[in-house]
Amino acid sequence: MLTTFFKDIDAVLNLLDLTGTLVFAISGAMAASTKKLDLFGATFIAFVTAVGGGTIRDLLIGTTPVGWMGDIRYLSIILIGVGLTFLFKKVVKKLRKTLFLFDTIGIGVFTILGLKKALLIGIDAPMAVIMGMFSAVLGGVIRDILLNEIPLIFQKEIYAMACIFGGFIFVMMQNFGLGFEVNASVSILTIILVRILAIKFKISLSGIDDSELKFFKKEK
Amino acid sequence: MLTTFFKDIDAVLNLLDLTGTLVFAISGAMAASTKKLDLFGATFIAFVTAVGGGTIRDLLIGTTPVGWMGDIRYLSIILIGVGLTFLFKKVVKKLRKTLFLFDTIGIGVFTILGLKKALLIGIDAPMAVIMGMFSAVLGGVIRDILLNEIPLIFQKEIYAMACIFGGFIFVMMQNFGLGFEVNASVSILTIILVRILAIKFKISLSGIDDSELKFFKKEK
Amino acid sequence: MLTTFFKDIDAVLNLLDLTGTLVFAISGAMAASTKKLDLFGATFIAFVTAVGGGTIRDLLIGTTPVGWMGDIRYLSIILIGVGLTFLFKKVVKKLRKTLFLFDTIGIGVFTILGLKKALLIGIDAPMAVIMGMFSAVLGGVIRDILLNEIPLIFQKEIYAMACIFGGFIFVMMQNFGLGFEVNASVSILTIILVRILAIKFKISLSGIDDSELKFFKKEK
Repeated sequence: MLTTFFKDIDAVLNLLDLTGTLVFAISGAMAASTKKLDLFGATFIAFVTAVGGGTIRDLLIGTTPVGWMGDIRYLSIILIGVGLTFLFKKVVKKLRKTLFLFDTIGIGVFTILGLKKALLIGIDAPMAVIMGMFSAVLGGVIRDILLNEIPLIFQKEIYAMACIFGGFIFVMMQNFGLGFEVNASVSILTIILVRILAIKFKISLSGIDDSELKFFKKEK
Repeated sequence: MLTTFFKDIDAVLNLLDLTGTLVFAISGAMAASTKKLDLFGATFIAFVTAVGGGTIRDLLIGTTPVGWMGDIRYLSIILIGVGLTFLFKKVVKKLRKTLFLFDTIGIGVFTILGLKKALLIGIDAPMAVIMGMFSAVLGGVIRDILLNEIPLIFQKEIYAMACIFGGFIFVMMQNFGLGFEVNASVSILTIILVRILAIKFKISLSGIDDSELKFFKKEK
Repeated sequence: MLTTFFKDIDAVLNLLDLTGTLVFAISGAMAASTKKLDLFGATFIAFVTAVGGGTIRDLLIGTTPVGWMGDIRYLSIILIGVGLTFLFKKVVKKLRKTLFLFDTIGIGVFTILGLKKALLIGIDAPMAVIMGMFSAVLGGVIRDILLNEIPLIFQKEIYAMACIFGGFIFVMMQNFGLGFEVNASVSILTIILVRILAIKFKISLSGIDDSELKFFKKEK
């Protein structure tokens, strides 16, 4: 069974990528609803939340037309996400924990797929890791800017650091010749684990104005 | 006479494109003046309002250098727009209705020219329609972000929906082999009409937090 | 000695470019600390402040992967800048005047290097001058947007006008066949001088709502 899983890693990742897109779109639509945007505004926010990170990565590394332009499934799934949020807002609110899990999986998958894409076109490993992290987090950054907020991930959670850490693991493991399937699985699980543990134990990064010199702090 | 019009459709569209650019630049400069920006700030806002949408479309579909980079007329006309607003601010304010008409024409023209550009480089129709809409509305979105506001078109007017609808009409009509002139004219007029009717009858899109499930609502 | 300087102009400019990057990163990290961002947020802000202008220039003119992607020194120097700000915040605050000088030098260098890059790929001179100015100022614009502020350079200082003026000087001087070394030196010094004089004599640009028709004004 494990062999089958690894054989079909691309199919699995593709499915998780689309699931992540759906969950990101829902989170964008939910955020839009707190600002009294209309349906177009909500759809636009959902769209940039879901594909914004990958779009910026594609632009920076020079892959155009950007990814979602040639694959109608992304737009379709985003519209489904907005529709679900519009029709079943209360249910969506209650599913917060489930959505969080898929959001975290999405971040992991986006990071590793973005990292892989950057490596494939010849970007050096350290920059490719950053491109992976950008793929996962910049959609949320654009969402927050459009909603006139300072981006959430600049203020709490080690979200982005989890992506960088997972990307680093991926690049390291490549040296051991284990194959993409194993590398991707391990590093995505690492990202998920680091994020969940950080939230569980309320660990976040310090800011520059902290007088005590500590990189990590525990929230009260 | 109609034949001549259709013969010269490219010249007409080009003229309307430049007129739209002028009006977008004026609207950007006016918006800047409400925020006490200096002349550079006003010019920058005018510039991104006028060319921002087309720039993002060009980046997403991979057309670089972006369009206005190779045609000094765009920059010139934007500077003229800022100059006119600076010199005749009161007159510009009084011309609001005329400007609104040209703004609406501009949106129609930007949509169809953007859509055509996307189709020409092989983007699939649904995405090309979105690229057309992006060309028309994203300049205003960047303007609002730079002025630290939640973008206006996320909150009211069916502005962007008019562009999508017009783009859809354009793509549909292509199947009837009517030629670009007729398609462009009809779909641009559709966009103008939809926007004017929506404003006249105060029709706008619902938001996600509306309890009654209606996609459109009438403003009070 | 002067001959040696001109011989090594590329090395000198490269050094100043990296110094400018460091100072921009420090200014970004300092700005982040006023908004209580965490270390990731501060690093991200430092990063976009330092490379944001050049990135947008590269995207607009079609140079991808964007510049810093292929040169790990930029990322390294930005991390050093953030680290220095984190460790020695009080010292950095005291060095404000020195940093201002290097910031101004950085702006001059960024402008001329960006202008040169645009000219080299065949962008017309007026647009290339704008690309030079964009390289120098847009990093700060993105920084301010991410921190939820109206960009500072839209409101005061003739900062961007100094870049345009210096770029104009550079383009003019090219007609005299003086060689890049002389042109670059003179126009960078012009930018530095204009900015320092404008600040010394508190000269700034008027806004559109000024009733008296003057392009420049003296701040009180």
